[in-house]
Amino acid sequence: MLQVIGVSQAQELSRSIAGGMTRTELLPLSELVGRVCAQAPLCGGDIPAFRRSTMDGFAVIAADTFGAGEASPAELRIAGEIRMGEETKISLTRGTCAAIPTGGMMPENADAVIPVEYTETDGCGSCLVYRPVSPYGNVMRAGEDVRGGGALFPRGKRLTPAAVGVLAAAGADRCLVYEKPRVGILSTGNEVVPVTQPLSPGKVHDVNTHLLEALCGIFGCETRLYGIVPDNEDALTGALRSAAEENDLVLLSGGSSAGEKDLTARVIASLGEVLAHGIAMKPGKPTVIGRIREKPVFGLPGNPAACFFVTEIVVRPCIEALVGASLPRRETAAVLAGNLSSNHGREEFVCVSLSDDGSAYPIAGKSGVISLLNAADGYLHIPRDCEGLPAGSAVRVILF
Amino acid sequence: MLQVIGVSQAQELSRSIAGGMTRTELLPLSELVGRVCAQAPLCGGDIPAFRRSTMDGFAVIAADTFGAGEASPAELRIAGEIRMGEETKISLTRGTCAAIPTGGMMPENADAVIPVEYTETDGCGSCLVYRPVSPYGNVMRAGEDVRGGGALFPRGKRLTPAAVGVLAAAGADRCLVYEKPRVGILSTGNEVVPVTQPLSPGKVHDVNTHLLEALCGIFGCETRLYGIVPDNEDALTGALRSAAEENDLVLLSGGSSAGEKDLTARVIASLGEVLAHGIAMKPGKPTVIGRIREKPVFGLPGNPAACFFVTEIVVRPCIEALVGASLPRRETAAVLAGNLSSNHGREEFVCVSLSDDGSAYPIAGKSGVISLLNAADGYLHIPRDCEGLPAGSAVRVILF
Repeated sequence: MLQVIGVSQAQELSRSIAGGMTRTELLPLSELVGRVCAQAPLCGGDIPAFRRSTMDGFAVIAADTFGAGEASPAELRIAGEIRMGEETKISLTRGTCAAIPTGGMMPENADAVIPVEYTETDGCGSCLVYRPVSPYGNVMRAGEDVRGGGALFPRGKRLTPAAVGVLAAAGADRCLVYEKPRVGILSTGNEVVPVTQPLSPGKVHDVNTHLLEALCGIFGCETRLYGIVPDNEDALTGALRSAAEENDLVLLSGGSSAGEKDLTARVIASLGEVLAHGIAMKPGKPTVIGRIREKPVFGLPGNPAACFFVTEIVVRPCIEALVGASLPRRETAAVLAGNLSSNHGREEFVCVSLSDDGSAYPIAGKSGVISLLNAADGYLHIPRDCEGLPAGSAVRVILF
Repeated sequence: MLQVIGVSQAQELSRSIAGGMTRTELLPLSELVGRVCAQAPLCGGDIPAFRRSTMDGFAVIAADTFGAGEASPAELRIAGEIRMGEETKISLTRGTCAAIPTGGMMPENADAVIPVEYTETDGCGSCLVYRPVSPYGNVMRAGEDVRGGGALFPRGKRLTPAAVGVLAAAGADRCLVYEKPRVGILSTGNEVVPVTQPLSPGKVHDVNTHLLEALCGIFGCETRLYGIVPDNEDALTGALRSAAEENDLVLLSGGSSAGEKDLTARVIASLGEVLAHGIAMKPGKPTVIGRIREKPVFGLPGNPAACFFVTEIVVRPCIEALVGASLPRRETAAVLAGNLSSNHGREEFVCVSLSDDGSAYPIAGKSGVISLLNAADGYLHIPRDCEGLPAGSAVRVILF
């Protein structure tokens, strides 16, 4: 019988048994957000590829404006007009300028742009400039946004809208990303029936399949559902073997009674190895961590809230390790609105609701009912060596 | 010419012109996370539907255990064993008990469960109980998780994994949600070419179509792309008219030069009305807010970072109003690592990168280049009436 392990030890174990993804796919820009980059994309050429004005105004040779002021404007001859998106044949000589729009391509010899509000034109081809401008003023140089030849971002980056934007800027219409990890989801328990089936006495609906499917979806995984497996060794062995073959990770929930837990551990041991049996967390103690054919397998509690917390706290690092990128989590600071006692020698995860003034109200109720989770805005964490938290404590709330 | 309006005024306007979704769809549990509930689902029956044990042990009549202790155990006759998921015919009488697993259905007359670790069996049908248990101890009553007849959650709730779980617990395999708002996305600008096309001099790739598609995806919208519309009145009129007919919201980006901005405003005015032209924010000033056939239309800056911030700050409330639910945002507290000056009379949004110690480093560079956004972990906000923030200021960073 393995010893109960601590939460951080369980997280470390979870991380260490993830194999790491090698399957990649090339996806178009429209499908990249949230995916993890599998190969740093290179920027072919400078962005922008040419010198651009960042203002509406006149492209000038900066030296021609030195000393210009309200009382002593510089007078420049307008050599022409730059049109948006077009290459220009204009080449400035000292004493000349060219009208240019924001984003327009700078003409040859021009090194600055004087904004239109500091100029005056006389309609006869002359432009008065009432302010000086420094060289490179209001000009974006070629490659100032991104230098050609470098990487746009590193492998392992979880792609944001801005990353998609920078790919587009570089003229890349796709990016190589890791495939979504495949998670096989199984429920067990003779009392569990599919959600579409009416309940006979003693039966409950299968919550965990759907809870895990939803959570793994948020974690960026593809899920494969194996339904409800009968609580016997043969059925469980067959189902777990298939799930481990067909997925990167297997989550088996159910069996909160001692006999069922032992069955889960026994079957995992027969197909592979059990690495931990029991985690010092509340809820979530009756958890089994194992490995079948190099695939991580988690035997999660049947109680839905416990199943949720073990997935959120212990399975999450395994999924992060699989794709090599952390998963974003929303947090907020809050003030605890009531006393919370804790003397269990286990790390505790407590559902709370938040009020507009930043108070966190612990939600009372039997540990592990699904309605607690549903009513909560998030949860807070009481460390193992802590005897509880008094009302008024500053806490971090992880938001659902 | 309309006056430049403040950011909060722009947000209020944005919120007020959203029509509100009426189209709904019934989706299976697997597709619900992140969607917004359009009708509060009712819980048909109590969850659980029967009294369940929350421990492995013996179902008892609590009164039979009163006074039991290590030295004076209560001795009960084992009337039988409850099997998981099955209705039992056992009915306890005083002095009897029944073995029961966690989650098992309580037999008639039993009102508490004594955990197995406080009992001893002699193999001859007797059970010694070494602790008293109160009535309802270790029992979850029928309806204790969710009472039958009530709403599982309200209309307008953005569905979490726990909400999916509570639907499953209630035997509901689908839920009515609002359809995703449809957002029409158009780019303009004679300098803009599709991402797949090579750049000739003076041209840049279309970043905003892809940036907006990605951002609207995160905002829970369906996007329809209208490509790059030439910078002329007829083309823009035709494209905007179609986009307003076919979507709930239209985002038109591009045209950062004065003439192009005026064209956008003129075309929106000819098809509907312009409600604001110019927002006191940096980046993002050259923004047009209007309405065509009761559909909100935003004329966004061509500069990608400005386009991003106006969408994130000003368009977001419109999308929240459309579905009647707020959009989650990740935030963190940080300490500013450098001085930030601001004397523009505009609210400013500044990209920052975060270090592990919680310092926020402003990212320097020309306002609005896409690489700034891509390099940043998030942004912070400098209010309009603030002259800047000194190094060491406590700041809130909104995370990308």
